[in-house]
Parts: sequence; C-alpha cells; structure tokens
Amino acid sequence: MQILDEKSLKRVIQVRPLNSHKGNFGKILTVGGTRQYGGAIIMSTSAAIHAGAGLVSCASSPLNLTALHTIVPEAMFIDSTVAKELRQAVAAADVIVIGPGLGTSAHSLEILSTVLQSTHKEQFLIIDGSAITLLADNRELLALLHGLQVVFTPHQMEWQRLSGIQISAQTNAQNLHVQQALKATVVLKKYQTVIYHLDGSIAQLKTGGPYMATGGMGDTLTGIIAAFLGQFHTSTPEQVVDAAVYIHSAIAAELSRSRYVVLPTDIIGKLQEFMLHALK
Amino acid sequence: MQILDEKSLKRVIQVRPLNSHKGNFGKILTVGGTRQYGGAIIMSTSAAIHAGAGLVSCASSPLNLTALHTIVPEAMFIDSTVAKELRQAVAAADVIVIGPGLGTSAHSLEILSTVLQSTHKEQFLIIDGSAITLLADNRELLALLHGLQVVFTPHQMEWQRLSGIQISAQTNAQNLHVQQALKATVVLKKYQTVIYHLDGSIAQLKTGGPYMATGGMGDTLTGIIAAFLGQFHTSTPEQVVDAAVYIHSAIAAELSRSRYVVLPTDIIGKLQEFMLHALK
Amino acid sequence: MQILDEKSLKRVIQVRPLNSHKGNFGKILTVGGTRQYGGAIIMSTSAAIHAGAGLVSCASSPLNLTALHTIVPEAMFIDSTVAKELRQAVAAADVIVIGPGLGTSAHSLEILSTVLQSTHKEQFLIIDGSAITLLADNRELLALLHGLQVVFTPHQMEWQRLSGIQISAQTNAQNLHVQQALKATVVLKKYQTVIYHLDGSIAQLKTGGPYMATGGMGDTLTGIIAAFLGQFHTSTPEQVVDAAVYIHSAIAAELSRSRYVVLPTDIIGKLQEFMLHALK
Amino acid sequence: MQILDEKSLKRVIQVRPLNSHKGNFGKILTVGGTRQYGGAIIMSTSAAIHAGAGLVSCASSPLNLTALHTIVPEAMFIDSTVAKELRQAVAAADVIVIGPGLGTSAHSLEILSTVLQSTHKEQFLIIDGSAITLLADNRELLALLHGLQVVFTPHQMEWQRLSGIQISAQTNAQNLHVQQALKATVVLKKYQTVIYHLDGSIAQLKTGGPYMATGGMGDTLTGIIAAFLGQFHTSTPEQVVDAAVYIHSAIAAELSRSRYVVLPTDIIGKLQEFMLHALK
Repeated sequence: MQILDEKSLKRVIQVRPLNSHKGNFGKILTVGGTRQYGGAIIMSTSAAIHAGAGLVSCASSPLNLTALHTIVPEAMFIDSTVAKELRQAVAAADVIVIGPGLGTSAHSLEILSTVLQSTHKEQFLIIDGSAITLLADNRELLALLHGLQVVFTPHQMEWQRLSGIQISAQTNAQNLHVQQALKATVVLKKYQTVIYHLDGSIAQLKTGGPYMATGGMGDTLTGIIAAFLGQFHTSTPEQVVDAAVYIHSAIAAELSRSRYVVLPTDIIGKLQEFMLHALK
Repeated sequence: MQILDEKSLKRVIQVRPLNSHKGNFGKILTVGGTRQYGGAIIMSTSAAIHAGAGLVSCASSPLNLTALHTIVPEAMFIDSTVAKELRQAVAAADVIVIGPGLGTSAHSLEILSTVLQSTHKEQFLIIDGSAITLLADNRELLALLHGLQVVFTPHQMEWQRLSGIQISAQTNAQNLHVQQALKATVVLKKYQTVIYHLDGSIAQLKTGGPYMATGGMGDTLTGIIAAFLGQFHTSTPEQVVDAAVYIHSAIAAELSRSRYVVLPTDIIGKLQEFMLHALK
Repeated sequence: MQILDEKSLKRVIQVRPLNSHKGNFGKILTVGGTRQYGGAIIMSTSAAIHAGAGLVSCASSPLNLTALHTIVPEAMFIDSTVAKELRQAVAAADVIVIGPGLGTSAHSLEILSTVLQSTHKEQFLIIDGSAITLLADNRELLALLHGLQVVFTPHQMEWQRLSGIQISAQTNAQNLHVQQALKATVVLKKYQTVIYHLDGSIAQLKTGGPYMATGGMGDTLTGIIAAFLGQFHTSTPEQVVDAAVYIHSAIAAELSRSRYVVLPTDIIGKLQEFMLHALK
Repeated sequence: MQILDEKSLKRVIQVRPLNSHKGNFGKILTVGGTRQYGGAIIMSTSAAIHAGAGLVSCASSPLNLTALHTIVPEAMFIDSTVAKELRQAVAAADVIVIGPGLGTSAHSLEILSTVLQSTHKEQFLIIDGSAITLLADNRELLALLHGLQVVFTPHQMEWQRLSGIQISAQTNAQNLHVQQALKATVVLKKYQTVIYHLDGSIAQLKTGGPYMATGGMGDTLTGIIAAFLGQFHTSTPEQVVDAAVYIHSAIAAELSRSRYVVLPTDIIGKLQEFMLHALK
C-alpha cells in the first residue's frame, strides 16, 4: 500500500505547454444542488475552477443560479431540471461530477439517470454523496456504469450502502473485493482516506486531520479531482486521483497552522498558490 | 461571581481527537430571518460554521436562500415556512438556535411553536431576540420549555419583557430569582454581560466595549454558543457558554485595536484563528 | 471660508463612552434603489454601517434584498413599495437618507413624498441624487421641508436644477443666497467640494482628487454623513457634516497612493480603520 | 510588427487632470449575459469599473441583476429584454461592449440587432464572443457596422467564422486582408495575441501564458478595452487598444508568480494597482 505524499502531487502537476488554450485543460460539468443543498454544488464548481479546469459548467436548480455567479462568475450555468439541456451538457463534457447536494428525491433520481444514460466511455464520471446513495437504492442503474471510467467518492456510510459491507467490516480486502467487481476507482473518505484503484493497488492518505471535519469538505474534493482529471494528461488517472486527494488534505494541513477549523472555501482559496508550489 | 477571562476559553477549547468526523462536532439548526431581518439569521449561521460546528442548517424564509449560500456555501437550507420540513430539521439537530431576525408576526409565532414542540431534552435550545419577546407575550408557550436545556440570550429590554423586571431593577439577586424559576441559562447582554447559570453561579464579562455597539452582534453570539455546545463535550454546558460569550468579546477587543467599530462579520472572520490561539 | 483638514475630523470623532449601546449611535434609514440603480442604495447603506451607525435599515425595491444582505448582512430591509412600511421606518429613524438610486419615475416621486411627509424636526434628512432632481421638478414639495433639518448633497447639475443657478454662475455668493433661503445645509459636490452651512459659514474641501471620479462616490458619502450625524452628539451638525465630507476624501487620498482609481467600495472598506486613526 | 510592452501601457495611462469628473472617463455599456452565461457579462462590467471607467451600465437578463449588484455595486443595470430601454442605454453610452455571454439564440440576435441599429459613429463598439458568431451567421447585419468604430475580439474559431479563414490558414497577410475589408480593429486572441489595426499596422503580445487558459479571460479583456477607450483621450484608439491588451496579460504574468492558474477575477482585482504602477 502506497502512502500519498508530496511526490504524489509533484509527479502530476506539470508546467503547462506554452501554446495551450482552455480547451486543453478540460471541460467539467458538475451536477447537483437542490434547494436544500445548493452550497454543495457551488463549492464543487468553485473548486474545479480554482484547481485549473479550462471550462466549468454547473448543472443545478435555477434557485442556485445567483449564488453560483456571485461566488464564481467564471462558471457557466445549466438548468438541471431541463433534461435536454442536461443531456447536451453531459455530452459536451470531458469530466462529470454528479452528486454534491443532489438529494435523494424522485427528481434527484431522474437527474442521475439522465446523466448516467448520457455519459460515454471517453469521459470521467465522479459519483459522490447522494448519487451514491441513490445508486445503492436503485441498483438497476449500476448496469449503466458498464464500460464507463468511474470514480466513487463515498464516506463510510455511503460505501456501506453501495458495497453492502458494514462500516466495522470495511477492511482493505473486503473493500477491494467489491471495488474490483464495480470496475471503478473508490476514494473511501474517512480518517486516513483510502483509494482503491482499478489495477488493484491501494493508496492511503496520512495527511489532514480533524480540523477538516466540517460539512462541504467532500464536495470540494470532487471539484479538485475533476479539474485534475481534465487537465493532467501525462499521468495515469490513478496518479491524478491520488494527487487530487493529497492536495485537498495538504492544503488543509497547511491552513490548520493558522486556524482551529479549516473550511472548504478556505481550501478553495489556496488551490492556485499550492499548485504552483508543487512545481518548485 | 466569576469574571470571564482567557482561562474560561482555554479550559473549553480542546485539541480534536485524530479519529473524529463532522458528526462529532454537532449538528446545528438556526431558525429565523424574515424578509426584514434576513441578515440576522445568516450571521448566526455563518458564526456557527466558522466556530467549528460539524454541520449547520439554516431554517429561514426562501427569500434568504441566495444570500445565505453566497455568504456561507457551507450551510444547508431549510424552508421555515414548511412546518413538516422544519419539524424534521429540529428533530435531527443537536443544538437549535431560534430567534435571530425571526420577527414577531403571527407566522413568527407559528415557527416558534413548531420548534418548541419538536425540541427534546437531549438537545440544547438557544432562544434569542424576537423569540424571547414572543415568549413573553405568549406565556402559555413557556410550558413547552419544561425539561429542555435552554439558553436565553436577551438584551435588557427583552429580559424585562420575559422576566417582568424593569431594567433599572435588574439586580443579580432579582435576575437570579426569575432565572432559577425558568430553569434556563440566561445570558443577559449589556455593558459587561452577565450569565446566570442553572447551578445558581454567576459569571460576568469584563472584556469588550462600545466598539461592539452595532446591529447583529447578538445574532453572531448565538451561532458561537451553538457551535461550542455542539462540539465541546469535555466541559460542562456552563463552561461552554462562558467560553462562547468570552471569545465573542475577546475577538472584538482584539479587532478594536485596528478599527473604531467592530462589525459582526469581522468577528466571524477571526473565529478560526482565535480558537487556535486558545490552544497555545 | 474654512478649509477642511484632519482637525475637522479629529474634533468630531470621540472615544465612545464605556457604558453605551447601539441605540446611542443612531438609527439610520436609507431610501432609494430602483431596479436600475440598486447598487447606489446598497453602497449608501454599507457606508453607514462601516462608519459606525448603531442600526441601519435600507428601504428599497425587493429586487435589491438579496444583494443588500449579501454585501452587508448587518443591514435590515424595508420594502419601499409598501407606503405603510416605509412610513413606520421613517418615523423610527434618527437620520434618513433619501435619493441614492431613487430614480425619477412617478413611483420614485411617491416614495419621496411619503418620506417627506413622515419626517419630523428631531430627525436629520439627507437629500441626494435623483431626490434633488425630483424636488426641483416638483417644487410644491419644498414646503414639506419647512422646519426640518435638511442636508442636500447635489452635484453641480443637480444644484443648478434645485437652485436655478447655472453651473457657470455658481459662485459662493450666489449659492449662499439660495441655500440660506432653503434653510438647509448644502454639500455641493465638485472639484474641491464646498459646504454651505445654516449659519452662513462656508467650508471647502482641498483633499481628494480625480481618482474619485467614478459612479457611486456620492452615494457612499451620504451613508457616512448619516452615520456621523447619528452618533457624534458632542459636535454641532455643521462640524459633523464637515468631518464626514473630509473623511470620505481623505480615505480616497490615502488609497490613491496604491491605486489609479479608488472605488466607493474601497473607501467603505477603510472607514473603520481610518476612524480609529482620527483618535490618535 | 510591433511587440507590445510596458511602453505600450505607459504612453497611454496618464495622470488625470485635477479638475475632472466621472463624465470625463467614459460612459460604458456592456451588453450580454443570458441565463447560461451570466458570469461573462458581470466580469466584463466589473473589469470596466476597476479599469477606471467613469460610469458603467450592464444590459443583461434580469436573472443576472442580483449577482451583478453583489459583485460590483458600482454598476448600473439595464434590462436587455426591453428593447426601448436597451436602445436608450446604447444612445447614452460612449463605449459599448456587446457579446460576453450573449448566446446565439433568436433573442440574442434581436439584442445584437437593436444594439447595432442604435450605435452611432462617435461611439466605440467592441464586439466579442457569441456576437461575432451571430454576425458570421447573419451577414446582412455587417452592413450596420458601416461607419462605426468597431473593435472585434474573436478567438481563432470565431475569427474563422467571421473571416472565412480556416485557423490553419490564419496568417497575418490573410487576416489583414479581411480585417481591412471589415474596416474594424481585430484583436485575435490566441497564444501571443495579434492586433490588426485600421491603419494596417500589426501589434503582437508576447506577455502572458498558459496560466490564463481559463473561461472568462476574454470577457474580462472587453471591459478593460472599453474602460481605456472611454478615458484615455490623449492617445490614438490604436494605442489605447494596445495598452488594454497588454495590461490584461501583464497582470496575469505578474500574478502567475504566485499561482498556477490566474482567474479573470484575480486580474480584475489588480487593475487599479497595476494602472498606478504604469505612471511610475
């Protein structure tokens, strides 16, 4: 088992080629954010933009339009309640995040189905939060993942729902067994997060700490993973996911030197600077 | 009578256990914010998040949804006009704040009743501002507080309404008499705020000053008390309330060295840093 | 003619009495902000809060509610389209600002009339921008100003409309003549702004410069004048208006050392710090 | 071919005359921003304000009103869905930006037509983004540009659509040929942006880099060009456009020393300071 460290980040973050444009750094689509959880998808979107994605669209409820534009005017907006608009946005993306603040209503399920039906195998699909719960409760949808490049980012309870493994029984062996059957990368978020890769390798995070125990942390991580998958093409997807998971906690660790708790928006605000440091 | 000082804070703020998660640091629900006073509940909510609460939901009018998400995307939103939604949110919380910007209309009273009926004795309930005025004017509701863990945070006029003691007659002896009958903690906000505890002890604030004399200060305090009650379990509730009241004014005192008036949002912005200092 | 300088500010800004509360520092009501000019009333309101006002309410179109709360959650909101609500808010205020972003529609005129009819002689009334134009075009309203404590803050074209004096003919003698007949303070905003006081004295600004030539500067000034009139009771209103006009430009001058243009929101952000410096 | 450098900026940015007012520094109107791309027009507007424009109005969908006012309360708002309101705003402006986030719907085309029909030859008209695509697809509109002072700011694909020159064939000679026929300035945005001037001269940017490869960069540039054309009257329009293009990338280059990617809003935040440095 590999321990994530600064080298995990440095091997992924590269000096950008001089003659490049925003199309080279990924078109990201984030999908989620009901009335109750609008902030979740906004944080995911803002994280993707600050982590260097070329173009980022956020598909959400129109209720979240103004807060999104105010926090991060660089983002574009898609009305997730209009299936046709959502399908077109999915088709145009390189990386899709589904789940932050999506909720578990019938309407949430419809959005998830639309996204899964529209995703194709050249794209990366990051499945987070309530989208994982919805999949666990509607297992017929799992067939739609067949052949797709999927990254799941569950916390332990969500992983229990999806994998059927009780939290207390979530050993690496058990987790790997189910993850390999899912043919997806699994980022299991917990104290010392573990990543189960497609090739059967395991990576573990020793960075970060309890100053990160606040709502929205996971949402922010999804945006970083998406931005990294969209822009770093000289590393394997395994290495890219490792780097994204590491930087999220490494920034928090750095910020914890000056604050008791670290908020997700604090981490977002430091991404640009921290990514530059990784080049040095 | 005890004078609050840095020790009041240091004995409460603890290094977080390594293996902890957001569930360990409290689920907070803030309730309030009509069209006229939306900022009040937003400041309470933002204070709770910056003071380290694990998960914070804000139950308010849908008119305040966008400003809430923009100021603090880490917060979740509950529509306080839907009684069922509000009841469920109250049931799920560890600590509830009711009152900031709630107003005193018939609809405000309905929201207050719903909250009081749904709160149970394992939870902490912080009652502030217009919720205190509503209780004073609808004294039959006081019966619903029976057995609950209540913290009142009145200013002197609100305390007059609730206690029946004229401001000029608000001596410690008189206040303690009524507070003990109420079986609730009372944080009486004034020049040199006094806290009347359940065990009959009294604590007084000597920190802070007239640079804090601006609207929204009390709203911010409620969020800090809530976050502290939700996360610091190794101290008594008395000690936790003391610490919250102290840090609110101690930050203001520190900030007053660089500004003529200190705004509530200034205090919120310094909570994370100041809490860390208390560990040192 | 007196030249405004640092002494004009230092004699007004006082150390606050220890035992004071927000009621001692003024209840301000700002009125204005149509759909087209919402930012104007928000900047006036935000300036009043940062300049130390105790309590600030903003009466505007509901379209501006969310932007107001997001920029300055310390402010309270009044729906200016509801005459009864507006009348009550005017009655409860110590200082009223009318005009920033008010517009000149029939509805704007109605709001102005309501405010003028509800203002009484213990209050200060600051009349700015389109409210001045409306008064010039509806001179029967001038009778409502009789006995009120009024401060006009026109730029030269607005003063031409109100006074009937062409810009090229606006000498001190001419201006003073009309101003004395109006029985109001006039802050004539221009290169080296001139203040005509009730007692016939004249003060002139030599501070500030063309880095302030940007929209919203005048709106911001109204909020500062209001906050100062609401809180500094040991100086005469003449001295207080002088101090407010001076600090607005003195902050801009200071900021111009690090930027080519100074925005109104930049000035608002420095008020708290600059007011403290005036004590030293 | 001239290479843009610091001298290109220094010859344009001037010390402002002491006795000047906001009317001297340009009335700017920005037009664009559908539901999907609201952030684009907000960034253009905010850039214009931070780059020193005297007065800036933003004509957009009412959906973008609140985000606009929150991000930059100095801006005024025009409802672009009301043709009469839009026409009046165009008539009152010195410089018009059309295109950021405008979209390519039938309604977008209508807005473009209204703007082109209302613009007169004393004004500058900056045509960006989807407005270029709309012109390419509705070539009968090109006749409306006759006699107007137009600056096009296409990226390479938009230029291909407008000029008919495939990206791979976009040599200076070819580009100049079409640009001269269009009788408009063309800022061709790409790695090392090239500017084709009315007098047949060519300027090229060597500053900036791939840290700018993120959505919204071009929108921000339009606001800077507009503000510069509105305020710097002692230089030729050629020199002014050169300076605006240069400062946009020069700020990004400076910021890239502390961050891996530079966001459009980062650049906006540095305009005031950077413009002052150009005086030194």
